[in-house]
Amino acid sequence: MPIPWTMYQTETRWADQFVLVKSEPNQAKRVNSDTETVPLEEAVRIVRSIAHKTGTETIPVDEADGRTLSESIFAPDDIPGFDRATVNGYAIISSDTIDAQIRPINLTIVGSITKGLSKNHELSPGQAFSIQTGGKLPAGADSVILEEDSIVQGDVISIQHPVPPDVHIIRRDEDFKKGEPVYPAGWILRPQDIAVLVSIGRIRVKVRKKPIIGIISTGRELVPSESIPKSGEVREVNSYLVTAFCKRQGAIPVRYGIIRDDAEELTRLIEQASQECDAIIVSGGSSRDEHDITAQVIHKLGKVYTEGISFAPEKRTTIGQIDSVLVIGLPGHPSATFMVLTLVVIHLLQAMKGSPNQQVYRKYVRLTDTLHASKDSDRYIRVTITDDKATPVFGKSGLIHMLSQSDGIVKIPAGSKGYNVGDRVEVMIW
Amino acid sequence: MPIPWTMYQTETRWADQFVLVKSEPNQAKRVNSDTETVPLEEAVRIVRSIAHKTGTETIPVDEADGRTLSESIFAPDDIPGFDRATVNGYAIISSDTIDAQIRPINLTIVGSITKGLSKNHELSPGQAFSIQTGGKLPAGADSVILEEDSIVQGDVISIQHPVPPDVHIIRRDEDFKKGEPVYPAGWILRPQDIAVLVSIGRIRVKVRKKPIIGIISTGRELVPSESIPKSGEVREVNSYLVTAFCKRQGAIPVRYGIIRDDAEELTRLIEQASQECDAIIVSGGSSRDEHDITAQVIHKLGKVYTEGISFAPEKRTTIGQIDSVLVIGLPGHPSATFMVLTLVVIHLLQAMKGSPNQQVYRKYVRLTDTLHASKDSDRYIRVTITDDKATPVFGKSGLIHMLSQSDGIVKIPAGSKGYNVGDRVEVMIW
Repeated sequence: MPIPWTMYQTETRWADQFVLVKSEPNQAKRVNSDTETVPLEEAVRIVRSIAHKTGTETIPVDEADGRTLSESIFAPDDIPGFDRATVNGYAIISSDTIDAQIRPINLTIVGSITKGLSKNHELSPGQAFSIQTGGKLPAGADSVILEEDSIVQGDVISIQHPVPPDVHIIRRDEDFKKGEPVYPAGWILRPQDIAVLVSIGRIRVKVRKKPIIGIISTGRELVPSESIPKSGEVREVNSYLVTAFCKRQGAIPVRYGIIRDDAEELTRLIEQASQECDAIIVSGGSSRDEHDITAQVIHKLGKVYTEGISFAPEKRTTIGQIDSVLVIGLPGHPSATFMVLTLVVIHLLQAMKGSPNQQVYRKYVRLTDTLHASKDSDRYIRVTITDDKATPVFGKSGLIHMLSQSDGIVKIPAGSKGYNVGDRVEVMIW
Repeated sequence: MPIPWTMYQTETRWADQFVLVKSEPNQAKRVNSDTETVPLEEAVRIVRSIAHKTGTETIPVDEADGRTLSESIFAPDDIPGFDRATVNGYAIISSDTIDAQIRPINLTIVGSITKGLSKNHELSPGQAFSIQTGGKLPAGADSVILEEDSIVQGDVISIQHPVPPDVHIIRRDEDFKKGEPVYPAGWILRPQDIAVLVSIGRIRVKVRKKPIIGIISTGRELVPSESIPKSGEVREVNSYLVTAFCKRQGAIPVRYGIIRDDAEELTRLIEQASQECDAIIVSGGSSRDEHDITAQVIHKLGKVYTEGISFAPEKRTTIGQIDSVLVIGLPGHPSATFMVLTLVVIHLLQAMKGSPNQQVYRKYVRLTDTLHASKDSDRYIRVTITDDKATPVFGKSGLIHMLSQSDGIVKIPAGSKGYNVGDRVEVMIW
């Protein structure tokens, strides 16, 4: 019995959804106006439609946890490959026991089978084999009687009731039938999947390579985290945040350093990263203060799809492309950066890994406070969850501690009535 | 504003909960009878009360994602350390603007401040500084007027309404006050916490060492995964399953190989592992077929707390201890092994890492099928989740594909009425 493939989005089906997008390049148009923004859903669509899947590599199965299969897996043989007993008891021929409806039937115990490698025993009518859980059924046997239910005297077992076929056994192809599909390409492997792969003899698997993500931080006030900032300066934290986030999402982060608002230097670094990485994340340069340097540089080297996402409280996110390399410019505040990582960049990483079906955890809890809607933008409000209640966390987005103070976010759709105290809301857990 | 410590179980508070247990050693008594079992909650309690926390080590903060802090972290300085503007605009002295209630007030713009290292500007009454988001406020300034709201002619800004103090600024200690608690010991670090630590200059942190888990597989029918099994043999998969599970939970798995039901060899291996590891997991030897070899060996080398957990469908789990090393014997079927890993072993790993507050994801969904309760044992039924509905997955526990076919489990308490189609149930996500 295989995994029901239809229950999951396979790589192919996901790709289908984007045929439309890919054939209409104008849909992902350059947004010129400084104030023009796209809704979050559109930003995700753009990112998903531009992102290229990474190449493939073959790795040992015990290093494949969390990786995405780039091949479909089929059972190479019947598994377990022989009929097995699922209990301790006696292997019998069920048709021998039909007459037990009228009077007890006696069978002769002709031998004993432990599990593990065994001779090809054969059972003739009127005979039984004592057998251990996991043991290989003798040829001819089609059911096993539970040891506890058996009346045995010497080498004779007395059967009081007819036994139907297929009781307390696993058939040779009941786990997997030779050639049947086991996992579709695009499946993200979990520890339990590693076990399944090993059970069918797949000790190597073909998976998507981890995407390499170039990380650049910009900001005139930034100093390296190892420095002691002078008054007016702050430690650069975004590259650490993006690095840890990328690692956790199965990507390989590569730091390109800090640029202090120098467009030429940024151009040089982005150009270099676009030749060495699968995608580039620039943080800081998309805030208004940096005069949209990131967007300017991307525009010079490639194209810009949007310079903003219309959700509160963080709008400034640039999405562009240089050759085949996607470039995302994040806002400079770490707490805003984290929001965009969780809402947008995660889709980039999933699309590159070919993992469209990756789950986001959601929880339904009651609100402890009122949340008003904005007329024009979807609002995303951080919340902490305690005792299955969500409490909104408000604060200036420039404060770093906002980062550690929330468990997830609640979306308040633009133009809705908002939420009242006690309303049940959906929280997307970080 | 720090993390509200009281909202989280700190290491200390968790330890407190176990003072009672530790002072009553008889509570974790040896269970002699072959049929005597303990409820799951009791098994978890035993594991949590025996498990020792691992030692500590100091690591670079950028390698600390997922690790548990073994020190409490306090802010070494005020953060950001200087008063900052949160918008582009004009830094002013708010008391200068009180009279704007009656008539417009003019202030003279005496300079301009960009963010980054800056001179110690000073603002005298009647003056204003143009300032950039993130810029350091001049001494004396206590509010910032938004650029968009300002009426400027030459070097004169005209104020139409009084401006209260503390508008559009972050005070020097508003993110963190020197000495205030930032994270309690026992906190599990996430990417956003790495960013917070870097922001306060913590580029090294003291964390719990990863627990080293010895893994032994037993079973007469087992052959190494690299082999092609002969008829009657099956590939050993549990060590792969336990290895991947331990890695994902932040432990270091060490394989000790396969024992084909040889008590002496198992004794030797367990003895060796108990000297080299923080805990030992033996799979297979706790099924009835292996005649409780694992329990016998543990009993000989140390003590056995229980030989079974009273939940269906997997009862056979041995919990014992050799010196200070906890030994857990798991059932042999991979799908049963996985269930016990998720319900019991996870508590062992969390307790060793000093991470009591680690979250388990739960989801509330409606059932598509009836689930009957058992009179004596809690039942744990695997379910798949599609379109927010949970469908029970039934199957013989000897089948490996059960592993990959479910998203979580539902508990049906012993002696309850069970659940009907359409009932809302809590699913613990794997």
